Amino acid sequence: MNPVFTTLPTTVFETMSRLARTHDAVNLGQGFPDDPGPADVRECGARALLDGWNQYPPMMGLPSLREAVAAHYARHQGLALDPETEVMVTSGATEALAGALLALIEPGDEVVLFAPMYDAYLPLVQRAGGVPRIVALQPPAFRLDEAALAAAFGPRTRVLVLNNPLNPSATLFAPDDLALLARYCTRFDVTAICDEVWEHVVFDGARHQPLMALPGMRERTVKIGSAGKIFSLTGWKVGFVMADAQLMRVLAKAHQFLTFTTPPNLQDAVAYGLAKPDVWFEAMRAGYAASRDRLASGLRDLGFRVLPAQATWFLNIDIAGLGHADDVAFCEALVSRHGVAAIPVSAFYPDGSVRSLVRLCFAKVDATLDTALERMRGVA
Amino acid sequence: MNPVFTTLPTTVFETMSRLARTHDAVNLGQGFPDDPGPADVRECGARALLDGWNQYPPMMGLPSLREAVAAHYARHQGLALDPETEVMVTSGATEALAGALLALIEPGDEVVLFAPMYDAYLPLVQRAGGVPRIVALQPPAFRLDEAALAAAFGPRTRVLVLNNPLNPSATLFAPDDLALLARYCTRFDVTAICDEVWEHVVFDGARHQPLMALPGMRERTVKIGSAGKIFSLTGWKVGFVMADAQLMRVLAKAHQFLTFTTPPNLQDAVAYGLAKPDVWFEAMRAGYAASRDRLASGLRDLGFRVLPAQATWFLNIDIAGLGHADDVAFCEALVSRHGVAAIPVSAFYPDGSVRSLVRLCFAKVDATLDTALERMRGVA
Ligand SMILES: CSCCC(=O)C(=O)O
Ligand SMILES: CSCCC(=O)C(=O)O
Repeated sequence: MNPVFTTLPTTVFETMSRLARTHDAVNLGQGFPDDPGPADVRECGARALLDGWNQYPPMMGLPSLREAVAAHYARHQGLALDPETEVMVTSGATEALAGALLALIEPGDEVVLFAPMYDAYLPLVQRAGGVPRIVALQPPAFRLDEAALAAAFGPRTRVLVLNNPLNPSATLFAPDDLALLARYCTRFDVTAICDEVWEHVVFDGARHQPLMALPGMRERTVKIGSAGKIFSLTGWKVGFVMADAQLMRVLAKAHQFLTFTTPPNLQDAVAYGLAKPDVWFEAMRAGYAASRDRLASGLRDLGFRVLPAQATWFLNIDIAGLGHADDVAFCEALVSRHGVAAIPVSAFYPDGSVRSLVRLCFAKVDATLDTALERMRGVA
Repeated sequence: MNPVFTTLPTTVFETMSRLARTHDAVNLGQGFPDDPGPADVRECGARALLDGWNQYPPMMGLPSLREAVAAHYARHQGLALDPETEVMVTSGATEALAGALLALIEPGDEVVLFAPMYDAYLPLVQRAGGVPRIVALQPPAFRLDEAALAAAFGPRTRVLVLNNPLNPSATLFAPDDLALLARYCTRFDVTAICDEVWEHVVFDGARHQPLMALPGMRERTVKIGSAGKIFSLTGWKVGFVMADAQLMRVLAKAHQFLTFTTPPNLQDAVAYGLAKPDVWFEAMRAGYAASRDRLASGLRDLGFRVLPAQATWFLNIDIAGLGHADDVAFCEALVSRHGVAAIPVSAFYPDGSVRSLVRLCFAKVDATLDTALERMRGVA
């Protein structure tokens, strides 16, 4: 059996959701909204199940969805993508990421990653045969440090993995940081895999900048998006990959034998959704910003130190000085004694360098957030 | 970039379906039915999209589906599986296979495979770091030869991949052959990955025998099933994995970072479908047997040599002596000049040892089969 998987724990998101069910807790751990999601998008998917095509769609995805993806990113991010050769549909962003790593890495290749990192990254890099070089970003600003980057890049670096906006820090990489990354990628001839699934969930007028749009990056970037995040339907598992045609040819070969294709009715519904007018996206963001503010101010009123959240469905509290050994101990007590599930941020730091942050998901209806706040009274 | 994928061609099924569209051909290549599939199952999936849960289900699959899978295989194949620890839901059988190979293979492990083999197997084994040992089965009987098996197994053999019923040969492994395989797996301490997606599509009163049920195999078998094949809804991409709890723990770790989970509404609908009464499965088989007979007798009337088809949606014709260089040349002419897409069976033989068989899919409405037959007049 493969040692990467024999020694791997179950993902913290699943573990916490299980604990939440056991303790009948309010689940602010795993990132998912608790409202039903856009009715028109779900209706479109249901109609396609009843009247549409339920057999294999093309391996790259339905042409209508690939065109919708290209049009969507042209409108929202100014990207020019050929739907025929530069867009692929996957069974969620996780499959897109796994496929990209398996396609791009040769055993022994070095891969630069940032901590905090989503817990899938490191085992996937290792299973693909990559040698990880981790650059840890520190709270509260999670800014990039050129010296650390310079130490991580070298002649064997072939791939960079970037998550921007960054989960769990809820930060956007600064324009200077992105420019620095683009310079390093071009200088070292590195391909960037950009997990940009939170690109639409940015607040306070901030705008997401795709790394692909930076000088020299168009031909060396694999951009990954997620319909689950865009439409608050995390169970749908519809992702997109965007890359230059030459890169895409190789990415497609990994995809064809990982899942081959993705349910056509959900693809139909996502194609419909991506064409929604700008006001829909503004309203979605405004809704989540209000939820963020409700949870953040409630937590501050309870005495918690709350870090700023510029993006994603998450905010972090700093639990240093609250009398717990670390973030894991805090989360265990929180779910079992107070009935609120959260995620210890150390799960995102393979080097264990950060142990005093706890992530809470605010993508919930007000009543859920209020119940969680009520239960957290007295914890700070 | 990884050499397994840079040198890999696009899967023959996709290529042929593309050619079929280009030439406006009747598509008897890629295996999918052309009727809409069971209405009640699709309605169940549509209702769940509208009224059900559209967020992440548990990583192992919905409890209701895992229970339905366990109950289904107890009823149909006499297997006793614990739904909690021995059943996992995947995004299609392809993901199940990819995950199992990535989980079970350590670089350098030897993997025994049979030709003809589905075109995903070899690149997945190679990408996982496995060293393939291929045993070629020869038409028309595709029987196992003990000497060939003995030559393939050795002290470094860790995994066997078995597809039973076998695509594209449309054969079932004989009870003796299965017993032989079980003996070799136990003797060499090998784990069998059994792609049994065609288990329900068997004809003429034959019964599928799961390798897992053979002596010594319960703890060393990974059994893979497919709702797409069972319900003639190939686009749904809902697969199942069944394995002893200890094996499953490792398989689950690969799955959690390949796709993590599968759309819950489709899982709901599959759970509903698996509980259908035996008569439903009998009727499904009878329908496909009638289609097989219609195509087979039509082809024989046109002068083709048709091999027997005991299972799957496919039958094979022997094109030796029809004046084509090989099966690929035959299929190219058939799609471009006659407007019928088929699959050259050499695509399933990495050693190129069989080049005179062509696979046709009969899982089509009568009108489709009749049009194909009409177009094939004069080709034999
Ligand atoms: C696949 S479960 C994790 C969901 C998520 O993106 C998160 O909670 O960070
Ligand atoms: C994933 S496309 C191939 C479908 C199939 O099982 C076949 O045609 O053999």
